[in-house]
Amino acid sequence: VRRAREAVAAVGAPLVLAIIVWLPPWVLLTVLTAAVLLAADELLTMARGAGVACGRWLPLGSLLAVMVAAWLLGPQGLLVGVSTAVLVLPTFQLAAPGRPQGALAGTSVAVFTVAYMALTVACLGWLRTMPAAGMGIRLVLFFLLVIWVGDSGAYYVGRSLGRHRMAPRISPKKTWEGLAGAVVTTYLAAAGLRLALGLELPWIHVAGLATVLAVCAPLGDLVESQFKRDTGVKDSSGLIPGHGGVLDRTDSLFFAAPPVLAYLLLTGRVS
Amino acid sequence: VRRAREAVAAVGAPLVLAIIVWLPPWVLLTVLTAAVLLAADELLTMARGAGVACGRWLPLGSLLAVMVAAWLLGPQGLLVGVSTAVLVLPTFQLAAPGRPQGALAGTSVAVFTVAYMALTVACLGWLRTMPAAGMGIRLVLFFLLVIWVGDSGAYYVGRSLGRHRMAPRISPKKTWEGLAGAVVTTYLAAAGLRLALGLELPWIHVAGLATVLAVCAPLGDLVESQFKRDTGVKDSSGLIPGHGGVLDRTDSLFFAAPPVLAYLLLTGRVS
Repeated sequence: VRRAREAVAAVGAPLVLAIIVWLPPWVLLTVLTAAVLLAADELLTMARGAGVACGRWLPLGSLLAVMVAAWLLGPQGLLVGVSTAVLVLPTFQLAAPGRPQGALAGTSVAVFTVAYMALTVACLGWLRTMPAAGMGIRLVLFFLLVIWVGDSGAYYVGRSLGRHRMAPRISPKKTWEGLAGAVVTTYLAAAGLRLALGLELPWIHVAGLATVLAVCAPLGDLVESQFKRDTGVKDSSGLIPGHGGVLDRTDSLFFAAPPVLAYLLLTGRVS
Repeated sequence: VRRAREAVAAVGAPLVLAIIVWLPPWVLLTVLTAAVLLAADELLTMARGAGVACGRWLPLGSLLAVMVAAWLLGPQGLLVGVSTAVLVLPTFQLAAPGRPQGALAGTSVAVFTVAYMALTVACLGWLRTMPAAGMGIRLVLFFLLVIWVGDSGAYYVGRSLGRHRMAPRISPKKTWEGLAGAVVTTYLAAAGLRLALGLELPWIHVAGLATVLAVCAPLGDLVESQFKRDTGVKDSSGLIPGHGGVLDRTDSLFFAAPPVLAYLLLTGRVS
């Protein structure tokens, strides 16, 4: 498993970086859309496995429509898309077989999946498209690489030094030592990438972004872990050898994207 | 019950209309905020009664924050508020007692309640504040009165002529005759109010709005009914004598507000 994990990372990570650097933004947005549909499908499958009748194609179709609206029309499109989904999903539940039993939980999981996935991934795509072209590319590279390095820091430090469990009921393998490894490597990666990428960002904001990422990336991981544990699933799927499912690999990225975009907007680095 | 129902309507309806006509818009927005918090509390209470651990004060506090953001900052505030709630609610679930059991359904119902209530009620408030002042007052009066008349049409026609049940599993008292009564009185009310209010709206759009309301107001009622039936509740609460709970009285209003605002925006009647 460890070998497969490293082999996939060694091929997959450069591939993603190449897409960001060499190909036009719509390719990245298309890849993000595919990833979010796969991740949402995994979350919905987990819920159905636990007996929640949230449906499959209706929420996935809604999510696709919301993403298209967000990419074509920006924040306004996202708002209109999510609002529409919030009304349409419970309406279609009226006609679902076996209703109204389980209607509230089923509708709610479908709406949560669409809203959570759409809002977070839209912010990740906008990190690339909202700033000027060169700045957007560098920001997304910074964002992804800092999270990946921090995640690897947690993994390797936790494996070798981990003793004290952080959240035994939610994610038994996570340790406080691993979290400390993640925080330290996150700050180091942010500093190194600021220099390597020539990112035009004052050091105070490099530290600010590293802090946001050090808090939010592990939180995104924990938030997904509680859903997996709740629904009795270990990996969200087996799609990526050694890494689990798409949701396992993207949970931190998705969750951290809105706070990072908010930080950049509030500090006037992106407008 | 019928007497109480009519007595409350005879006092309550003119009171609400007086607030809209005579008092500044922020009073209406405050009343809407209070109503949406009560309605959300009823929905959350129904869910908890059915065993979903969605919490109470955290989603209600989030909803209040989102409404304040929507009133002060408009659609942007609503989008940022809902996005924040979508990340914050599952994060707080991590620390809830008994977790992670029930985390996905609990988070989802909390997020659904906040998103559904905030998005719909924001649109209702904006019907008053987005157009010019006189137009906004007339639009909200038109909106409320058409729905109330249509609802009464359904009630009285259904009571006297109702034979064929429309949705026996979801709401056994609703009949096709009642729905026909609602549709006819909705169109009549829209025409009458166009004249009585001096609403500057071409007749084609009066018909368009009446169609939107004839479809969406009954749908909003059915959507709430399925949640009540699912959770084994008859009235959302006993707060309003003869009418049930706040949610029972507002479900059609909330659900129909976004489609009506969308219709007005898309046809250029409001910008």
